[in-house]
Amino acid sequence: MGVYISGVGMTQFGKSTDPLEEMMAQAASLALKDARLEHVDALYIGVMNVEEFVGDSNFATLLADTIGLTGIPSTRVETASSTGAGVFETGFYAVASGHMKNVLVLAGEKMTHLPTAKTTRIISEVIDRSERRYGATMPALAAMIAQRYAQEYHLSAQDLEEILSQVAIKNHSNGVLNPYAQFKKKITREDYLKSQMVSYPLRRYDCSPITDGAAAIILTSEHTPVVVSGIGHATDTSAVSRRASLTSFNSTKEAALKAYSMAQLNPADIQFAEVHDAFTPFEIIGTEDLGFFPPGQGWKALAEGETHLRGKLPVNLSGGLKSRGHPVGASGLAQLVELVYQLRAEAGEERQLRRAEVGLAQSIGGMGNNNFVTILERSDRKRVLQEGWKPSYRPEIRVLKKAASPHSSIKAGILEAFTVLYATPEGFRSPLTLGFVKTRDGERVMACNPDYRSPEELKIGKRVFLDTREGLYVFEKFTFSRFLKRLIKGKPVSQP
Amino acid sequence: MGVYISGVGMTQFGKSTDPLEEMMAQAASLALKDARLEHVDALYIGVMNVEEFVGDSNFATLLADTIGLTGIPSTRVETASSTGAGVFETGFYAVASGHMKNVLVLAGEKMTHLPTAKTTRIISEVIDRSERRYGATMPALAAMIAQRYAQEYHLSAQDLEEILSQVAIKNHSNGVLNPYAQFKKKITREDYLKSQMVSYPLRRYDCSPITDGAAAIILTSEHTPVVVSGIGHATDTSAVSRRASLTSFNSTKEAALKAYSMAQLNPADIQFAEVHDAFTPFEIIGTEDLGFFPPGQGWKALAEGETHLRGKLPVNLSGGLKSRGHPVGASGLAQLVELVYQLRAEAGEERQLRRAEVGLAQSIGGMGNNNFVTILERSDRKRVLQEGWKPSYRPEIRVLKKAASPHSSIKAGILEAFTVLYATPEGFRSPLTLGFVKTRDGERVMACNPDYRSPEELKIGKRVFLDTREGLYVFEKFTFSRFLKRLIKGKPVSQP
Repeated sequence: MGVYISGVGMTQFGKSTDPLEEMMAQAASLALKDARLEHVDALYIGVMNVEEFVGDSNFATLLADTIGLTGIPSTRVETASSTGAGVFETGFYAVASGHMKNVLVLAGEKMTHLPTAKTTRIISEVIDRSERRYGATMPALAAMIAQRYAQEYHLSAQDLEEILSQVAIKNHSNGVLNPYAQFKKKITREDYLKSQMVSYPLRRYDCSPITDGAAAIILTSEHTPVVVSGIGHATDTSAVSRRASLTSFNSTKEAALKAYSMAQLNPADIQFAEVHDAFTPFEIIGTEDLGFFPPGQGWKALAEGETHLRGKLPVNLSGGLKSRGHPVGASGLAQLVELVYQLRAEAGEERQLRRAEVGLAQSIGGMGNNNFVTILERSDRKRVLQEGWKPSYRPEIRVLKKAASPHSSIKAGILEAFTVLYATPEGFRSPLTLGFVKTRDGERVMACNPDYRSPEELKIGKRVFLDTREGLYVFEKFTFSRFLKRLIKGKPVSQP
Repeated sequence: MGVYISGVGMTQFGKSTDPLEEMMAQAASLALKDARLEHVDALYIGVMNVEEFVGDSNFATLLADTIGLTGIPSTRVETASSTGAGVFETGFYAVASGHMKNVLVLAGEKMTHLPTAKTTRIISEVIDRSERRYGATMPALAAMIAQRYAQEYHLSAQDLEEILSQVAIKNHSNGVLNPYAQFKKKITREDYLKSQMVSYPLRRYDCSPITDGAAAIILTSEHTPVVVSGIGHATDTSAVSRRASLTSFNSTKEAALKAYSMAQLNPADIQFAEVHDAFTPFEIIGTEDLGFFPPGQGWKALAEGETHLRGKLPVNLSGGLKSRGHPVGASGLAQLVELVYQLRAEAGEERQLRRAEVGLAQSIGGMGNNNFVTILERSDRKRVLQEGWKPSYRPEIRVLKKAASPHSSIKAGILEAFTVLYATPEGFRSPLTLGFVKTRDGERVMACNPDYRSPEELKIGKRVFLDTREGLYVFEKFTFSRFLKRLIKGKPVSQP
């Protein structure tokens, strides 16, 4: 059964003094009004972590009551930071089943009322325990992915800085035109370079902000101008260290393949996209994973203006998570609201695309392990589909074997990626140097280093020793004198 | 599209030393083996509060990975203590939509590793904030509902004690025969009377225990011996005080009506049922809300043995939440696993019913505000349906107006229900006397009383004064001398 969109709504993103349920009720009210409905058959609520951000449980019930629809079925859905896309998918199946005619899909998060350190701790709980215990945060993992991307595609530190700054500058520039965006402020390259280092090489302007916000969509089995034409959803390993590749997200690729296949479209058919830029490198990687550009070429397309407002394939016209804001549970749904505004030509003169008939949104859950790709289309569109695209990959979710718990035998390996984390979680000193080390037997492990304090001392691709302290892997520069010292101490050494 | 069940599995309920994801993976593995599947199209995960019980987020991803199905879509679903039924409903729509062929529905909770006071606090977060701040716990609210039931149906305190003890004795007796049950221990009326008072009149044996456990079901579009024939889901007000009735759950009634209507069955067709007995009074009320017995008659049916193992309509053959245990997120799904064991004649010689062709499960989320009714049936059954039942109600979710915040003007009202809570949450002294007071203008408010220490001093139906202290309503016995004193003080008095 076809599933259509009959109403959308969202709150102004930013800092709100309203309770979460009130914010969400406002978005719901706008969507109901837009759809000219007073009642729906069911409510699907997306919130990532209402338990710890707000201290409530049983939130789906509270929402039905707050909206004034007490009685109707209400279910909470969660897939970490892609929750907004997850709740949309869940509502989609409910309507597609034929059991429901109209459902209200609602997503929100309230985050700004807590101290940043607490928010960081709560968000870090999406990270696999084996990596979280090193003090790894989301920016730290994203930073290592960015480092690895530069390494694999032969980009210098300066190149990488230039590329990442361009994402931030473009999305802030788009955000200025979006009335719902948290930041309506253009930034310059100088602003970017002045912004604080969060986790080398990522600066504050590489990271999406902490935001309050809510978004709502009405899904219906009745024909409307906007149809849901493709949905894909896929997971990847909980631990980043167990992935075959660090420079693309297999879960995006797999989700994209499903969405394209369901929509019978290919990447060249997509006219505009919202791509999950929780961290600037993710937008570049996203545009490659989605098949818009070949691996390692996403940054070039950006540099050449292809993803700009008036480019061939505008990306994050809303300002993205970077500038619109990132209320974690809401972002995935806000992306879809943005697509609808464009498809219905309601995005406002300056931001509206001339050709907006088919749009795509990609949402990342956790550190790239619960991802969605959703394609929305004008239902009156004459389909003249682009031909010729074949996915160059069948994204196999290849999984590296689980690293054994750190034990006392000394190992050695290659430093695959590293970061120096300045904004550390509670209980970890700052700065904290973290890295991924690939051992000779093909395992990848996270490791820390208490000695290095500056990124300049480290180089990706170099051999390192792996020691263990207090149950954690520690990496050290591989030097011949250290090698000899260890040999003399009689500790087993496995050379990389 | 028809949705069938091809596999089920559950862990031994009780105290487990395994991490939650391992427990859930065990249940998943049993269900996959039962269905002879190695792969499914999607995973739906039900956990009520993994954030606070376990300290994890992004749990749907971790589960896909732990089960060894990295890559497939995985979504977490939550509806408070009915989460197990909620995740089943969500998986049902995914298959019913035709987009999925086989989905694994998985629910679990790990609770026993925390101190009881912390567990109580976490569970209390399902209660509306307006009632939670009085120190109201789930047993306290259930106790007041039990008190009100006795009052409305003219049962003495002794009658009520007798009735509640019979629920506990029956369910413990059934649990002895269930290999998965937490308690395999018959209890006597003496054991019941000796058990500690938790919240007057509810004793420890009236309350379901704290439990670790997981359950799994495979839903499929392929024809199997067990078909999902009806699902109903409904909500009620977040605050108990705003409900029209305290002695039945409208959300159960509404969900039942939907489930019967979808299945084209009526209550007389149901051969056995699992009813959410988180507290013993809920089983009695449940059997009435489901249309098995008229309002106020559920206790008689139990007393006459109708709901016993060899009765006309056996209820909680599994031992129920009371004896099988209540891992909050898992219970709703474990009920359905139990129905499948019976429908497939795999419940074991002593527990197996001779006639098990259609079974029903009812699950309560929160304090009766996110409820499910699910009907499973043998797909080879020759339907000879019972005629003649008409629902005597169209359950209207009538909502009382929101009580104004406590202000200084003195009111008076009628004490509708009360409890003396002994197991108080952190920060509240024990015992704590709580009550519902209905004011003359039709509002129902929660109120506390710091003076009463014993249930004997209070009587339902009596007039009380309502005062306010520190933003909370406080009730006091209505005496003529108090009335005069207040008049003299010049405070406005609204007589009930």
